[in-house]
Amino acid sequence: MLDQVIAALAHDLDAVVLDVGGTLVDEAPPGTPVTDLRAQPRADVPEILDALAGTLRLAAVTNTTVMREPDVRRLLDAAGLRHLDVIVTSVDVGAAKPDPAAIRTALERLGCRPDRALYIGDLDTDRDAAHAAGTAFVATDRGLADALKRAAAARRGSFANAAAHVEPLDATAVKAARVRHDQLTKPPGSLGRLEDLAAQLAGITGTCPPPVPSRPAVAVFAADHGVVASGVTPWPQEVTAQMLANFVAGGAAINVLARQVGATVQVVDVGVAADVTALAVEHRKVRAGTANLADGPAMTVAEARAALDVGVEVAQGLLGRGHDLLATGDMGIGNTTASAAIIATLTRRDPATVTGRGTGIDDAMWRHKSDIVAGATARAAAYLDPVSILSEVGGLEIAALAGFIVGGVAGGVPVVVDGVIALAALLVADALVPGVVDRSIAGHRSTEPGASAALDHLGATPVLDLGMRLGEGTGACLAVPVVQAAAHVLAEMATFAEAAVADDPLVDG
Amino acid sequence: MLDQVIAALAHDLDAVVLDVGGTLVDEAPPGTPVTDLRAQPRADVPEILDALAGTLRLAAVTNTTVMREPDVRRLLDAAGLRHLDVIVTSVDVGAAKPDPAAIRTALERLGCRPDRALYIGDLDTDRDAAHAAGTAFVATDRGLADALKRAAAARRGSFANAAAHVEPLDATAVKAARVRHDQLTKPPGSLGRLEDLAAQLAGITGTCPPPVPSRPAVAVFAADHGVVASGVTPWPQEVTAQMLANFVAGGAAINVLARQVGATVQVVDVGVAADVTALAVEHRKVRAGTANLADGPAMTVAEARAALDVGVEVAQGLLGRGHDLLATGDMGIGNTTASAAIIATLTRRDPATVTGRGTGIDDAMWRHKSDIVAGATARAAAYLDPVSILSEVGGLEIAALAGFIVGGVAGGVPVVVDGVIALAALLVADALVPGVVDRSIAGHRSTEPGASAALDHLGATPVLDLGMRLGEGTGACLAVPVVQAAAHVLAEMATFAEAAVADDPLVDG
Repeated sequence: MLDQVIAALAHDLDAVVLDVGGTLVDEAPPGTPVTDLRAQPRADVPEILDALAGTLRLAAVTNTTVMREPDVRRLLDAAGLRHLDVIVTSVDVGAAKPDPAAIRTALERLGCRPDRALYIGDLDTDRDAAHAAGTAFVATDRGLADALKRAAAARRGSFANAAAHVEPLDATAVKAARVRHDQLTKPPGSLGRLEDLAAQLAGITGTCPPPVPSRPAVAVFAADHGVVASGVTPWPQEVTAQMLANFVAGGAAINVLARQVGATVQVVDVGVAADVTALAVEHRKVRAGTANLADGPAMTVAEARAALDVGVEVAQGLLGRGHDLLATGDMGIGNTTASAAIIATLTRRDPATVTGRGTGIDDAMWRHKSDIVAGATARAAAYLDPVSILSEVGGLEIAALAGFIVGGVAGGVPVVVDGVIALAALLVADALVPGVVDRSIAGHRSTEPGASAALDHLGATPVLDLGMRLGEGTGACLAVPVVQAAAHVLAEMATFAEAAVADDPLVDG
Repeated sequence: MLDQVIAALAHDLDAVVLDVGGTLVDEAPPGTPVTDLRAQPRADVPEILDALAGTLRLAAVTNTTVMREPDVRRLLDAAGLRHLDVIVTSVDVGAAKPDPAAIRTALERLGCRPDRALYIGDLDTDRDAAHAAGTAFVATDRGLADALKRAAAARRGSFANAAAHVEPLDATAVKAARVRHDQLTKPPGSLGRLEDLAAQLAGITGTCPPPVPSRPAVAVFAADHGVVASGVTPWPQEVTAQMLANFVAGGAAINVLARQVGATVQVVDVGVAADVTALAVEHRKVRAGTANLADGPAMTVAEARAALDVGVEVAQGLLGRGHDLLATGDMGIGNTTASAAIIATLTRRDPATVTGRGTGIDDAMWRHKSDIVAGATARAAAYLDPVSILSEVGGLEIAALAGFIVGGVAGGVPVVVDGVIALAALLVADALVPGVVDRSIAGHRSTEPGASAALDHLGATPVLDLGMRLGEGTGACLAVPVVQAAAHVLAEMATFAEAAVADDPLVDG
């Protein structure tokens, strides 16, 4: 475990600088005579230094007015703390203010750039000193091993960090919602799906009754698909960028539906082929469209990971701005082909049964599209790792959506998932982070056959079934009022006792 | 036809008072010498007077400064206008102001009360004179036969009048909506049901794009059912009145859901068994609960008609207060039994297949309920007339709902229909007034089996399917945002041309 952490750190770090008192060794009581000083190493520190040595260069820094470097080294050696390439003592009189000088000196002596180093200390002044010196910082409050683990996590990417925060539904809150629903002035169970949604919202937020989501946001991830070169759709690739302009102008279906439910629309270029820098969208382009999945991998694993991170970061940005419900949206000419391949691969279904007509194609084009999906699926099926499947046959917006879903779920808000593109992303997200589906809400059942295949595989029941197949997040937005209704009902209905309504029919009747 | 009209009028009229110039005969040009006056009877008037005579007493009134009663009678006789029991000439100088004196004199001489008389004239001053005299008035602008027909219609009851105003969907507006939808920036048909709803709204309102319904109202009709004495539900009958108090206090599910969508809740007592006069609801009680339909007719035909009228009048009241979308609601312990019997009768299905578990009953109670429904259906099946079926096995709130639906449809607004109780009412309404279903919107699919049977029979597809079975209008209210979304989309989305998006993929791609 520690070896993996250190290997992860070594990926983009050259050195670790460690504070001494409170980090490597226990603090000596103030005023202890120098001759009485004994270094008492903190738990596991000698073994951790042994493990770090050889992979990363190590330095120690300490504020002391009474010792020089050889004195400190002698004390530490005596305590079994070896492998320190550099030890710097600062003449600064204490720990009351940040002192970057010692860190800078240590890094200079190591020949290490500050942005390739990590400083580990125990005080807020240590954190400020690291910041002033231009190095990353991690606090050692739960021990050195934990600090290294968190430092490694901070370097793993947004997706992995968010994934680590996905938890099962709060069973206590779910149970409380069920109990409360049975006390409300109606026959038990008579509000059907609204009761299930209320319990799910309680489980997601960990409170009962759950708050009514009042600040929804829909993120529309846009990207292009190299597979359009193979003739899987009659729509030209330029339409992706044209529709981005339409989103910005407020004229698309998602604008109208989001406006109705009071949802913010955030448009994100995660991979549009055209240059759309002039448009007022969030610019997070990972690459300018995928390669043609009919010929080979759509993107690299690193690109898929980068798009996953974009999705998480967009979700985190929206949560940071106070949004309390996220809905998924997508735009990308050709993306039903990529979605079908992902769905066929992850559900292990016959590719022809999950290939649909997308925006509207004739029989001949459908057969051609289905053949391409089948070929891509055959390649992708060789992988067990969902990220590899995503990179082989996916899309940049699909990867970003998977990240967005995980980011929202990790943030403890309900995520309403749209149609077939979003469901392909949810399949990936749930495969990468089991349990994500329990905290997601399927907004609607797209008429694309892949949507029903994905829903079945995930065991998810969509809120709406309106024969829609537009994408953009339209189906998810339409489901938002139903989700809100579920929360309103649980919070606002009177109980039998409050309303003085007879509530035990089997006795009273 | 005329005989039927006259028979209808005679039901609550004793006399008809007729204006002379412009009604019975053409107006003579002003200043015509008396010796030159010839009465030219208006079309069909002699025959109509022949038909009226013997059934109703007849009077004529005329403003003239130059003739007395014998002169007028001589002129009219010469023109073939006989049977006038009384002729009154007024010395008032003309038609420039209302003159109730002549009408009052005529009625006194006939020995007839003003509220048992009808005045027919051609001028606004005639209308005002009738009002001042306390008689009903009808204008003769499209001839006397038409005037009598309208007068009879005004006496037939609100339901029959509303029914006469139900028209087919406006085909031009429907077509315009379809054409416009295909120009919007999305693949044609990709918004599924939203496109159908938009076309229906255009057809209902006769405009394209149709206005977005922004002032919804839900009317909750409450009534009790004598059949609860037969043990078809574990809930005590008192719950109906208790729930009315809950509606007034705002604690029921319908209050919560209506509040969310900005809908007014109008609660109407059309037949609650308990005395609820202390509650702030609309008091339109036709009778205090139905008789037990297990033993015989639930109500009289007259009571069913009265409840139909209440429904229409409630709808008209809401439309008069500016509401532009109506949703149906209901409350009545025992009403799934009555609904099942209506549905079984009108859809000709096996009663057991449309009998559900209502608010929640066990197998033994369900079998008992199903037997009662079967017995009631066997009796009701003897009738072809839907009002007779309604009176035999229906409920007062079901009859009122049928009237409410017809009232809303006749008023040209969308009517969103709730679950199994409302669908029973819609079956009755559509049987009485074919075409009502085309202007109604099925809000949701209740889990009650009768709901699906009614939907199938009507060829209606519900907007939502959320496993609900509460009633009160909850499913209809939840569907309102989807209906509004359909209108928003058609009105607000950009066209391909406006957004400069490539719109002809088969050429461009």
